[in-house]
Amino acid sequence: MTLPPDPRTHLASGTTRAVLRIQHRILDTVRAHLTGLGFTELLPPIIGPVTDPGARGAKQVDVDYYGHRYKLMTSAILYKQAALFAFDKIFFIAPNIRLEPLETAHTGRHLAEFHQIDVEVAGASRSDILELLESLVSRVIEQTLHAEAAALGELGRDSAVLGKALLSPFGRRTHGEAVDRLRQLGHDQSSDAEIDWQGEVLLAAEAEQPFLITDYPKGSRGFYDRESEQLPGFLRNFDLIAPEGYGELCSGSERENDYRKIVTRIRETGENPAKYEWYLKAAREGIPASAGFGIGLERLTRYIAGLDSVWQASAYPKVPGVPSP
Amino acid sequence: MTLPPDPRTHLASGTTRAVLRIQHRILDTVRAHLTGLGFTELLPPIIGPVTDPGARGAKQVDVDYYGHRYKLMTSAILYKQAALFAFDKIFFIAPNIRLEPLETAHTGRHLAEFHQIDVEVAGASRSDILELLESLVSRVIEQTLHAEAAALGELGRDSAVLGKALLSPFGRRTHGEAVDRLRQLGHDQSSDAEIDWQGEVLLAAEAEQPFLITDYPKGSRGFYDRESEQLPGFLRNFDLIAPEGYGELCSGSERENDYRKIVTRIRETGENPAKYEWYLKAAREGIPASAGFGIGLERLTRYIAGLDSVWQASAYPKVPGVPSP
Repeated sequence: MTLPPDPRTHLASGTTRAVLRIQHRILDTVRAHLTGLGFTELLPPIIGPVTDPGARGAKQVDVDYYGHRYKLMTSAILYKQAALFAFDKIFFIAPNIRLEPLETAHTGRHLAEFHQIDVEVAGASRSDILELLESLVSRVIEQTLHAEAAALGELGRDSAVLGKALLSPFGRRTHGEAVDRLRQLGHDQSSDAEIDWQGEVLLAAEAEQPFLITDYPKGSRGFYDRESEQLPGFLRNFDLIAPEGYGELCSGSERENDYRKIVTRIRETGENPAKYEWYLKAAREGIPASAGFGIGLERLTRYIAGLDSVWQASAYPKVPGVPSP
Repeated sequence: MTLPPDPRTHLASGTTRAVLRIQHRILDTVRAHLTGLGFTELLPPIIGPVTDPGARGAKQVDVDYYGHRYKLMTSAILYKQAALFAFDKIFFIAPNIRLEPLETAHTGRHLAEFHQIDVEVAGASRSDILELLESLVSRVIEQTLHAEAAALGELGRDSAVLGKALLSPFGRRTHGEAVDRLRQLGHDQSSDAEIDWQGEVLLAAEAEQPFLITDYPKGSRGFYDRESEQLPGFLRNFDLIAPEGYGELCSGSERENDYRKIVTRIRETGENPAKYEWYLKAAREGIPASAGFGIGLERLTRYIAGLDSVWQASAYPKVPGVPSP
């Protein structure tokens, strides 16, 4: 994969302009769709005493905040749950920083600075939130095809191929079924871990439509994904995978909101519960039950615009390990 | 001034809900107004090798980015200018981190983490951008009065008082005139420096409408504010001050885009031009002439909602020096 050129060349290119117009349209559509459904958009924090520990393989960034050790947000998950104290349906367009390993610089799928369309709904089940996710992604694709035909044309994106996403409901398989399929394809995927990104690309290459993978094993994800009561050891969570080889777009779950289970799960991941002081205090007093998801905005833009690399979907791209403007 | 309560108490309070609804309305109105005028919204960077050095009295936050010393954005000004390579009219809703001095914790006007409505227009003069600023702020007030009457009522905000902002064009005085007035009021304001915040509050307490202060002396502001050719030593810049004692809402300027003048101005401020490598390379190749402004979103929310303190306008408030969620 290529790396970004200098800022002037990148920003002045016709490709970048077309991509940023599409990204603007995506965000407009997300805001209109969610606001129309009664959601309130809130501004997430950038730094805090604690952030999501679950970012696979990526390092967190520490900052000195008046002598306290704070972190740049790797995801806003804990703050999304807290936001439900104010409103039942919330979303953020949340910037995240994850120092991904250097070897991801050339995957075309990793940025060290990116944004999530972060949605959380009090009282929602996994099935409720999957319905919302599918309607949101479908609406974004439909609206982009309709209103950004010129920009898609400039990028050489085949509308008929993208439009296949809208032809039927998104497919669905469990994590176990995805592992089985990858092994059939000769890919050595662990059944105890997340689907690795090469595996996601293999599954994505077989698909013409976005599809869901559900029920990840417990050890593979953050403590905030709720464990199934029917299937102990498996989580009430999911990923949305883009077709045509693009891979993961989104992760989500029903959330754990039982204080004692949260503490147990934090301990199981090897983390120190004391770090999560404000969150655990809120959980002890009663965080609402909820479900939600986070869509990688630049990955969604890459899929819709048909880009070689995710850095093309950022005005100021940060490719892991590569100096940026 | 009081400090924020715990996250649950803050987020669950009726006051916070009403304030966040108003803030959502402000952002919706900004986006609709600017998009309608042909602006493209872009997502600003969160960290970078360089940021605005001009934040008076506040410290920048360093981060280790793959062994490079990066900074959290204190303002997106340099990146706004670069964005003009892509589009002539751009805006960001940009998060900023500034470690303000501990003594600002109780001013009611300072947050260590806040957002700017950051606007930049290629080819614009100060008079063009002031017209845009006034139309934008007026539209936001008008729309909030119209659509958020219930939320304003819950907060006890007197609509008639807020509505005075719309009765006539915003007033205007130069920095020199503002200094003279403050000295008449017995406030010891330097003629070589920005109006200090106590001075802004004094001027703001005399006003019923937002008003502009223009032509700050050269040493008082960042290197990117363009010096006047007619009035050497003074800048083609401005602040917008909210009435009723609320104080500064916004700073803006015509921008310096002459490479040699930028380097000279950077040196005059005691900064090392080598730090600004990517920006100076772009400037040498020709950054467009422009003018723009940044409105403090939480301060604008505070003024419109009539709040005692700016932290009330943040879902996850960071008061300087005070531990936060």
